[in-house]
Amino acid sequence: MQGFRVCVVGATGVVGKTMLKVLEERKFPIRELVPIASENSEGSLVEFAGDKIRVVTPSKEIFKGAELVLFAGGNAVARTWAPIAVSLGAIVVDNSSAFRMEPDVPLVVPEVNPEDIKWHKGIISNPNCCTVPLVMVLKHLDQLAGVKRVLVDTYQAASGFGKALVEELNEQIVSIASGKPPAHSVYPKQLAMNVVPGGWKKGPAGYNEEEWKIINESRKILHRPDLRISATTVRVPVIVGHAESVWVELMSPLDVSFVYNALSTAPGIQVYEDEDEFPTPLDVADKDDVLVGRVRQDLSCENGVALWIVSDNLRKGAALNAIQISELVLLGEQAKVAV
Amino acid sequence: MQGFRVCVVGATGVVGKTMLKVLEERKFPIRELVPIASENSEGSLVEFAGDKIRVVTPSKEIFKGAELVLFAGGNAVARTWAPIAVSLGAIVVDNSSAFRMEPDVPLVVPEVNPEDIKWHKGIISNPNCCTVPLVMVLKHLDQLAGVKRVLVDTYQAASGFGKALVEELNEQIVSIASGKPPAHSVYPKQLAMNVVPGGWKKGPAGYNEEEWKIINESRKILHRPDLRISATTVRVPVIVGHAESVWVELMSPLDVSFVYNALSTAPGIQVYEDEDEFPTPLDVADKDDVLVGRVRQDLSCENGVALWIVSDNLRKGAALNAIQISELVLLGEQAKVAV
Repeated sequence: MQGFRVCVVGATGVVGKTMLKVLEERKFPIRELVPIASENSEGSLVEFAGDKIRVVTPSKEIFKGAELVLFAGGNAVARTWAPIAVSLGAIVVDNSSAFRMEPDVPLVVPEVNPEDIKWHKGIISNPNCCTVPLVMVLKHLDQLAGVKRVLVDTYQAASGFGKALVEELNEQIVSIASGKPPAHSVYPKQLAMNVVPGGWKKGPAGYNEEEWKIINESRKILHRPDLRISATTVRVPVIVGHAESVWVELMSPLDVSFVYNALSTAPGIQVYEDEDEFPTPLDVADKDDVLVGRVRQDLSCENGVALWIVSDNLRKGAALNAIQISELVLLGEQAKVAV
Repeated sequence: MQGFRVCVVGATGVVGKTMLKVLEERKFPIRELVPIASENSEGSLVEFAGDKIRVVTPSKEIFKGAELVLFAGGNAVARTWAPIAVSLGAIVVDNSSAFRMEPDVPLVVPEVNPEDIKWHKGIISNPNCCTVPLVMVLKHLDQLAGVKRVLVDTYQAASGFGKALVEELNEQIVSIASGKPPAHSVYPKQLAMNVVPGGWKKGPAGYNEEEWKIINESRKILHRPDLRISATTVRVPVIVGHAESVWVELMSPLDVSFVYNALSTAPGIQVYEDEDEFPTPLDVADKDDVLVGRVRQDLSCENGVALWIVSDNLRKGAALNAIQISELVLLGEQAKVAV
């Protein structure tokens, strides 16, 4: 039997399901796929490569012999089981935030810092879904003119929160369409026909955890611990596709045409150069590329650019990036060529 | 007969209807209300103070004897009829952008620059729906610590575009709820379940007309022609209520508590000081106050604050502000006390 034994923990969630889809699409070499979830999903079936596979709960026995364990769930599950999977010989690629800021855990976007994979000790973290597309763009701006300061306002889809909010949003839409008052219990405010600058846990200085993730993870991935960066995160009534309005102050002047040129040849990025065109979440849903548009000079400072970035938060923001990391670490040079 | 003869041009649109509602709520002294619209609406009835009033088309005869003409429509109608109304002795308060940047036309937010009303020559312009709440907040920050630079990302409701987009959004919601593909013809992209960083006319330097309005109007209202300011405008699937994420760099350090203190006593502003609370478009719809939350230090610069501002784009962003201007100019000191 060729290929790897691959476990996907959280296989029934929105990210887990996308991982299965991406593994299949990219023909990741798999000899056995093991979908893992909590007791709630135990015994349910997931589809993979034409087969229906029974979902199991995590256990030492299950992880034995796995070369790769992908974590698509929350922090608690990853904290409990990732070290066990590693001790049993697996490489762990974890989409939770449990280990992202650990000094001995690489946090990787293959187009940005593939070299960091080398020093992993078993666990490699996958960044936050807003961080991935942001650093993919910032890397090029940093190379072109040195990034001095970054401000980000997000427009984040319901699927970034998970299945429960997607369902709540869809139910609200049905209620509104039939003239009934929409209910909400998953999120602190009604999301349909609204935008909500909250719903994340509180962090220091009035910033929520999502904002801190964007700040700290960008610094780590770009190897710029000093990077001046701040963010405001907002949930919008969209199913898939995060958007970010980004203001970047640079060390030296940079013409917009250079930004377009650099981004148009960048792997994983598609630029909209025509002023009449602009990418939206609906344009990026189910696509691998990060879409960038509305690149223009920041009128409020000398050396600044404004950009609009959208990406599929379940793909490049989560599942795809995790599987690209897995390809880099398990398939080596073969995968690196693509970067 | 007591009170004024008041014409509302564009009385059947979303802003015009809100003007009628606000005039009634505030008991504006009216002896005759004349709803005016294009031929498409001629003969239809609008409700005002318990009466049903027949809509007429604009003409010299109609404007004769009017003390106040409120324009709630587009630029072309205002350019044609506002000077005629003024020549017939009326005060014009115009919600279109036709005259806003004319040097001899005051552009007024009563809480910010009421003194500018004095030098009007018949026409007073009402600012853009994003500009009004923005300058209401910036004025206080400028007084506290001097505003140096401003960046704005918007989350703008469909009603800011007009009735046609509200209807298109509602139809899209009904389609989605019943599993049908949503259509769009009014806006360049589907708005339901999406966010769209466009749909405004192009302007110089890659910025659209809406962004230029925020920039130029803020400078004019704040008497800061040098103000460093830039903006990215985004349409979101919301019916009423514009939101803005704002980054303000200041001349000197400013503690967040001072911002809360200043805004909590500011007329027309309600602040959310509790970190767990944040205002959303649904919270502000049909309210007069501008709601401000998520005030915190900008982590990316020394003297900066971040804020989240929402306001009813049809009320304070349009109809209410226009009627407050009308009160100031026609009711004089009596109205000024409220400011």
